[in-house]
Amino acid sequence: MMERKVAFLGPVGTFTEEAARFFFAGENVQYITYSSIPDVLDAVDLEKAHYAVVPIENSIEGTVNLTMDHLIHQVDLPIIGELAYPISQHLMASTKKDFSQVKKVLSHPQAVAQCRHFLHKNLPHAEIEYTKSTAEAVRLVGENPTQPWAAIGNRLAQSIYPVQFLQEEIQDHSNNYTRFFLISRYQAALQATDHEKTTILVTLPSDFPGALYQVLAAFAWRKINLSKIESRPTKTGLGNYHFIIDIDQQMDEILLPGAFAEIEALGCQIRTLGSYPFYVKKIEVSTETC
Amino acid sequence: MMERKVAFLGPVGTFTEEAARFFFAGENVQYITYSSIPDVLDAVDLEKAHYAVVPIENSIEGTVNLTMDHLIHQVDLPIIGELAYPISQHLMASTKKDFSQVKKVLSHPQAVAQCRHFLHKNLPHAEIEYTKSTAEAVRLVGENPTQPWAAIGNRLAQSIYPVQFLQEEIQDHSNNYTRFFLISRYQAALQATDHEKTTILVTLPSDFPGALYQVLAAFAWRKINLSKIESRPTKTGLGNYHFIIDIDQQMDEILLPGAFAEIEALGCQIRTLGSYPFYVKKIEVSTETC
Repeated sequence: MMERKVAFLGPVGTFTEEAARFFFAGENVQYITYSSIPDVLDAVDLEKAHYAVVPIENSIEGTVNLTMDHLIHQVDLPIIGELAYPISQHLMASTKKDFSQVKKVLSHPQAVAQCRHFLHKNLPHAEIEYTKSTAEAVRLVGENPTQPWAAIGNRLAQSIYPVQFLQEEIQDHSNNYTRFFLISRYQAALQATDHEKTTILVTLPSDFPGALYQVLAAFAWRKINLSKIESRPTKTGLGNYHFIIDIDQQMDEILLPGAFAEIEALGCQIRTLGSYPFYVKKIEVSTETC
Repeated sequence: MMERKVAFLGPVGTFTEEAARFFFAGENVQYITYSSIPDVLDAVDLEKAHYAVVPIENSIEGTVNLTMDHLIHQVDLPIIGELAYPISQHLMASTKKDFSQVKKVLSHPQAVAQCRHFLHKNLPHAEIEYTKSTAEAVRLVGENPTQPWAAIGNRLAQSIYPVQFLQEEIQDHSNNYTRFFLISRYQAALQATDHEKTTILVTLPSDFPGALYQVLAAFAWRKINLSKIESRPTKTGLGNYHFIIDIDQQMDEILLPGAFAEIEALGCQIRTLGSYPFYVKKIEVSTETC
C-alpha cells in the first residue's frame, strides 16, 4: 500500500505536529508541512495528502476562525477525528538572560494572547512581533543568537532549535487545551473510544426571529445534548450568521435524522461536517514530555 | 469644563480613529492613541481617559476576541454606543510597482484575512508580515521606500503617510463592515437614533443540558428579538462557555427585567454589558472619503 501522507501546519515543532503524531502513533506515515492552515486543508482537498490535522479551538482564546471558515466556505471535507491536547507555553532564548535584557518577544498571535498577563507583568518594555507559528518564532530566535530576543513556544520546538528556557509554563491559565481536527476523505485506524461527536452547520432563514430557539427545541425534547453552539458570520453582511453545533453523540438512524428533518422543515439548511471519535490527551507529569 | 479625552487604538490613521471621529464629530475632544486594545480599555478603567472606542466585530472575520474578553474578564465598563462602519482595504507602496516586484506585504492579521483571496491570486510569492495595526504597516512601508514592500490599509492612513495606491478595494467581500463600541462611565452627546440595543453576558450552570434552550425560551415567548448569540470560553476549561446575547431593544421596565429574572431563576448568571444607541455609517460614493 502506498505510504499515506499527513499534512499539518509547519514548520516542524508546532503543537499541530504533536497532535498529528498522536493520531498516527506507531504508524508508517509521511508527514508534510504547509505554511498556512488553508494550504493544509487544500492539500487534502486536492489529493496531495490523505489526511490534514488542523487546530480548531483553544480553551482560552476560542475558535480558530481561519480553520472553521475554510472548512465551511472553501472545502467540503469530513471531520473524522478530534483530539483535545494540553498546551503549555514557555519563554526561551538562545542564551540565558534576564527579562530586562529581552527587547523583543516573538510568537504566534494566539500564543501571545495566552501569555498576555505574564508579558504585561514581566516584560512590559519588550516589543511584540507576531510570527506565523510558535515554531517559526523559536527558529528565528535560535538563528539570531546576538539579538536581544526571546520566543514563546512549546517543548518540541525547544528540543529542535538551539534555544534554552528562560521560564517554563508562562501561560496565564493552567487549564489550557487546544482541540485539533483530523480531516480526510479516508478512514484512519484510530484507537477505540466511547466518546463520539457529530458537528453540524445550521443556516437559519433570514427574517425568522426565534429560529435558533426552534432549532434547539428539536434537540431538547429528544434529550440530545449539545456541547457547543457557536455563531460565525455568513460573510453576506453584518447580522447574518451560521451556527456550528456540536452534538454529544455519533450519527444514528433515528434521533438525529428526525431532529434534522424537523429543522429543515422550519426552513433551515443543515450540513453535517462530520461524526467522529473524540480523544483527550492527559497532561504528563514529567517535564520531559518531548 | 475640562476637555474630554477619547482613547483609541493607535497609531493615527486606523479605522478605530475614523469611528472615534464619527462619535465625537464637531465636538471639542482630545484624542489619545494607545498601542493595544487592553491599554485603550484600561485607560478608561483607570480614569486616564473619559471614553474608549474599540472594534468589536467584523462582518467577515467575526468578533474581535481581544476586545470581548477584556470587557468580560478585565474591566467592568458599560457600552454606551455602537457604530457599524464600512471597511475598505487598499494595497499601497511608497512608489508605483508591479505586484511581481512586491516581496513582502505588511498588515494587521484581520486585514490580511479580509484580503486572503486577493493575496493568494495576485501576490502568491509575497511574504506576509503581521503588524499591530494597518496604520503601522502603512507607516513602515512609507518610511522604507527602498524596500520591495507593500501595505494593506485604509484611506486615512494613505493620506497621512508617504505612500500611493497600488490597487484600491482589495477586500474579498464587498459587504464588509466593522462594529465599534463606545465605552464609558460617562454619557456622551450622541445623535438621536431609533435603533437601540442591549447586550448581556449569560453564564449557564454546568451540567444543565438544554440550559441555552431555556434561556432563549424566556425571550421567545415575549417576542423579544435577539440579533446575535455568541459563545466565548469562560477560560476555566474546554466546554465551558459564556453566551453574549445582543437584544434588539433598549432596557425597559417590564419585558427585559421579567426575562432576566426567569433566566436567573434557572440558575444562570446575567450581567448587562450595556443598553445603547446603534448607528450605521453609510458607504460614501466618492473615493475621497478622507
